[in-house]
Amino acid sequence: MGNAHYPLVPGHEIVGTVTKIGNNVKKFKVGDRVGVGVMVGSCMLCEYCNQDLENYCPKIVFTYNSIDKDGTITYGGYADMIVVNQRFVVHFPDSLPADAGAPLLCAGITVYSPMKYYGMTEPGKHLGVVGLGGLGHVAVKIAKAFGLKVTVISSSPGKESEAINRLGAHAFLVSSDPGKMKGAIGTMDYIIDTVSAAHSLVPLLSLLKANGKLITLGLPNKPLDLPIFPLVLGRKLVGGSNVGGTIETQEMLEFCAKHNITADVEVIRMDEINTAMDRLAKSDVKYRFVIDVGNSLYQQ
Amino acid sequence: MGNAHYPLVPGHEIVGTVTKIGNNVKKFKVGDRVGVGVMVGSCMLCEYCNQDLENYCPKIVFTYNSIDKDGTITYGGYADMIVVNQRFVVHFPDSLPADAGAPLLCAGITVYSPMKYYGMTEPGKHLGVVGLGGLGHVAVKIAKAFGLKVTVISSSPGKESEAINRLGAHAFLVSSDPGKMKGAIGTMDYIIDTVSAAHSLVPLLSLLKANGKLITLGLPNKPLDLPIFPLVLGRKLVGGSNVGGTIETQEMLEFCAKHNITADVEVIRMDEINTAMDRLAKSDVKYRFVIDVGNSLYQQ
Repeated sequence: MGNAHYPLVPGHEIVGTVTKIGNNVKKFKVGDRVGVGVMVGSCMLCEYCNQDLENYCPKIVFTYNSIDKDGTITYGGYADMIVVNQRFVVHFPDSLPADAGAPLLCAGITVYSPMKYYGMTEPGKHLGVVGLGGLGHVAVKIAKAFGLKVTVISSSPGKESEAINRLGAHAFLVSSDPGKMKGAIGTMDYIIDTVSAAHSLVPLLSLLKANGKLITLGLPNKPLDLPIFPLVLGRKLVGGSNVGGTIETQEMLEFCAKHNITADVEVIRMDEINTAMDRLAKSDVKYRFVIDVGNSLYQQ
Repeated sequence: MGNAHYPLVPGHEIVGTVTKIGNNVKKFKVGDRVGVGVMVGSCMLCEYCNQDLENYCPKIVFTYNSIDKDGTITYGGYADMIVVNQRFVVHFPDSLPADAGAPLLCAGITVYSPMKYYGMTEPGKHLGVVGLGGLGHVAVKIAKAFGLKVTVISSSPGKESEAINRLGAHAFLVSSDPGKMKGAIGTMDYIIDTVSAAHSLVPLLSLLKANGKLITLGLPNKPLDLPIFPLVLGRKLVGGSNVGGTIETQEMLEFCAKHNITADVEVIRMDEINTAMDRLAKSDVKYRFVIDVGNSLYQQ
């Protein structure tokens, strides 16, 4: 997607207010509080679009760095205005703050959708969340709202207090501690793996009970070793998932509004972006930077 | 399981007649036609047993080469009698022949159970069956009975006529032909992979549409490369499955009886076993040898 010869301008968790609508728009009126996530277009005709899974449409147009139907490049949400087809716009619930709510439009739906699709919402079941970052911390909150027992799995022992005291996880497991990992074998029903760095799935599969499910959301750039014995003998599965369709995104926002779920964010102004990018490269953010575009442009 | 110091006596697709029942047996009476599959015991107390998934019980006792509760080794079905707890015995439908029906007790349930569990039974969907052997040929028949379109995927071009004319598959795909494989990219909803030799999952995953499911039933003895991009971007999953519980085995037999599904077998006498083993090692059987124990022992 996209073209390396054009400047990449990101931004795909966008909250704002409708300022103008087209003649055929029935879903929104001027003044509505709305959100736009990772996509702004799709073919609207294929089997995926017909099932409200525009996110798996082969002709998906991403919100940034994608080629739109008119041949132009999409430039995301670092802007005071964006024009979007109503199909890819959601109502943003009144009770959700714009800043801490915005990351739900990507991070939220990315963890919510697989929990629903793979049947990982049964109250009392035990979920492991691998990696405590933008996706992982929202996964903990959504899983708790479903009534799951949540264990954060991390290679950083220092994150234990954060996971348990701040985010309310029920337990913390240090993945680099072989003794702790051994003690947790066969204790989990589901695992959501948010880590993009190449890593072994073998110890994670061993944490699962029979019939357990391991969902990978990160994108390691090389294949991972998949041992087949645990899959067959324990009927375990390894699956992936990529954001969600517009209708499911709306459902997720309403779920989060009902359960008071937001992301943990640090709000910055546009002129702080370069500093923020440097800190992001060092994972020095809890857990998402959100740019206040309106206040950056009009109230300096 | 089992112990290498004892002789291994196999046989786990057993059909016979009840000759005697215990005082508490209500499920069967003397004279009933019955079957026993891969297991003869389990703890009967755990979460898996409680869900009729004895096949995933950590204390499962296999029909052969397993240590039974009394400490003895189980010696399978190459015998004129076997004593089995009623929980692990199924009624064998009258319309199924004993010889061609027997392999359903392992091969049949091994392919039927994942089709049900993973939701691979929607009429009109397209299933690829990798490997045309004991499991694969039964998978083709069961899939057709569910109303699926079936493509046999094999590295042996010579199996095309067999797959289409004898077994009724709708199409045949030579996995060693890059052009043919390329032409089939993104065309399948489900794949059942019966191959135990180490092989790449990458081309199989590429045959799947988005939301496609790849179920592995073989047991390669080393990990396979798992590319994560197709899993995430196409919400594909790789799962396994291992036979099925007693109740599901009963359900499968009734399904097969209703749809006139049996395995393709070659019936031999006990004194032909050594020859049969040699031929099995060369994959020279279509598709299962069945030993006629009764006729071997009593009617020579």
